[in-house]
Amino acid sequence: MNKQLHPKSHKIAILAEGSFGVLESKTATVLVRYLPNNVVAVIDSTKAGKDVSDVIEIGEGIPVVRNLAEAMRFEPTMLAIGIAPPGGELPEAWRGILHEAIRSGLHIMSGLHHFLSENAELAELAEAHNVVLWDARKPPEDLPVATCKAADVDATVILTVGSDCRVGKMLSGIEVTNAAREKGLNAEFCPTGQNGIMVWGWGIAIDAVVSDFTAGAAEQIVLEGAKNHDLLIVEGQGSLVHPGYSGVTLSLLHGSMPDAMIFCHQPSRKEVARYTVPLPSLTEMIAHYEMLTAPIKPAKVIGLALNCFDLSEKEAYAAIAAAESETGLPATDVVRFGAKKLVDAVQKVYQDNKR
Amino acid sequence: MNKQLHPKSHKIAILAEGSFGVLESKTATVLVRYLPNNVVAVIDSTKAGKDVSDVIEIGEGIPVVRNLAEAMRFEPTMLAIGIAPPGGELPEAWRGILHEAIRSGLHIMSGLHHFLSENAELAELAEAHNVVLWDARKPPEDLPVATCKAADVDATVILTVGSDCRVGKMLSGIEVTNAAREKGLNAEFCPTGQNGIMVWGWGIAIDAVVSDFTAGAAEQIVLEGAKNHDLLIVEGQGSLVHPGYSGVTLSLLHGSMPDAMIFCHQPSRKEVARYTVPLPSLTEMIAHYEMLTAPIKPAKVIGLALNCFDLSEKEAYAAIAAAESETGLPATDVVRFGAKKLVDAVQKVYQDNKR
Repeated sequence: MNKQLHPKSHKIAILAEGSFGVLESKTATVLVRYLPNNVVAVIDSTKAGKDVSDVIEIGEGIPVVRNLAEAMRFEPTMLAIGIAPPGGELPEAWRGILHEAIRSGLHIMSGLHHFLSENAELAELAEAHNVVLWDARKPPEDLPVATCKAADVDATVILTVGSDCRVGKMLSGIEVTNAAREKGLNAEFCPTGQNGIMVWGWGIAIDAVVSDFTAGAAEQIVLEGAKNHDLLIVEGQGSLVHPGYSGVTLSLLHGSMPDAMIFCHQPSRKEVARYTVPLPSLTEMIAHYEMLTAPIKPAKVIGLALNCFDLSEKEAYAAIAAAESETGLPATDVVRFGAKKLVDAVQKVYQDNKR
Repeated sequence: MNKQLHPKSHKIAILAEGSFGVLESKTATVLVRYLPNNVVAVIDSTKAGKDVSDVIEIGEGIPVVRNLAEAMRFEPTMLAIGIAPPGGELPEAWRGILHEAIRSGLHIMSGLHHFLSENAELAELAEAHNVVLWDARKPPEDLPVATCKAADVDATVILTVGSDCRVGKMLSGIEVTNAAREKGLNAEFCPTGQNGIMVWGWGIAIDAVVSDFTAGAAEQIVLEGAKNHDLLIVEGQGSLVHPGYSGVTLSLLHGSMPDAMIFCHQPSRKEVARYTVPLPSLTEMIAHYEMLTAPIKPAKVIGLALNCFDLSEKEAYAAIAAAESETGLPATDVVRFGAKKLVDAVQKVYQDNKR
């Protein structure tokens, strides 16, 4: 598993130069949301002087600063790269900032496709300054082909699935995990992507794994999580109707062998983002997932996590009611209205499993 | 694309030591079947002295020999590694044979997971002797995320899909391609696995591609094939109900964007090989494929390729009749009874596309 640095033991400066608050800075937003006591500053010269909460509505009290030198006043121990550009390459302009950070003794946490630890120049500099270059996307060596072992764990396994990328599969997974813990369940979130790994401190970015072994990686995550927990909430990836990433989605579905699924969707989204592929109805998309689990280990969708961030409160309630009516399943927006409905559904599966 | 060596321009000795004629030597059998004029000898000391056709029923006149020294009497220019062990590692005992082959001036063609060209010792020796180490599974650099461009090609695209691994998706694809060419169609086979690549001389082993880019690799194969051909038969991989490889299958389905599919199956097989997963009915499995193409580019299964190698002729006819009755689709065993029924179905799609 990917466990080189535990972000919760660090004070973090986030590099989001030129793009804090836009879609490409999802990593920065996620770090602010889930590590608010660790993030000490966000670097973006175009928004310097603002409070983080002025830009992304969360993270009150965290300053946006002009550059690394300013961020150093808040005594960070780690620099986190806060963007995930398509393709995953390191923007050339950032190279100098990374050099400066390493020279200042900061560990670097990155979710880029381009592995910092494989960049000879950076690796040498990091060694000289005794800091770690942690590539959260870098998969472990020697992953196996999936063997269906995930079906044998004692833990109850819930997978978040969805209609598209960026609809809330990671966020819903974390919220359900936290809410289950509040109910006293021994729950663990199982990250499968770089942002989840950076927030939670372990996991495998399964979309970075060679496709023969992608389901095997999902299986390993479940086996690892089940060592010390009774309830696992596995982070989903992509969608079965996503032209680029559907294979990742299905590998995760068959490798993690969930007992049940939570379906995540953004009600305002009508097409796969960046493609002209219309999304099927909720009922159809749920049927796809259930149909594909059936031959191997049948699992049902037990609830809907709807991402209504772009709707008014009234519209959000209407979207939730419409989804519940269409599917007969409990639905909520976990950020706006909490995860209670979903945790109740999860707890029912958990109790049925214990019998 | 993977095009370093064209096997049809070589005289080939196949290394299958200790396992010629068993399941692990599928590569050897495929090379004998499709490059009968190129294969000059098969190396397996346990079957030395036999004719290849005594062992695998095809390849009459090709000798099985004791070792490389004996094979050299037939003046090969290339050594092909004829097995694909699970995991894909190079058996330690074979290292000496590879050294000897390189020293004898033979190019090496390999489909192993372990890339020979990345083995420093072998690479150095190959350079010194001016021979190529061709890793047919090694994917090209810088593959893109799939973009749905494969939907825009003028060529008609047919994908072979199936119930499991090793049911005949490659073989059916080649047989349909050859039969279509005999009918005067400008058809091309598009290999997606190491054996197809070794036989046909180009392609990408998509199961060796990082999962984010697997559909993108399938798209690249279609774009490449469509440059000079009107009809593409794309080699399928795995199965939607295979616990280890289903993600590869779905990436290929969504990346290649077929106009129609040929469903491949072994009637005697009731479970996914090496797993205890019962296969759903033909009707259900076909529905899975069609359901998952529908949201992106709808495609129907237009025929069945049934691998009846382990059935009597009477049983094979009965299995074909039963499958036709269940599905309403034309079915054949392309090896035993030819590919005509399937080519007729493919030609109909091709003609409908031209209108």
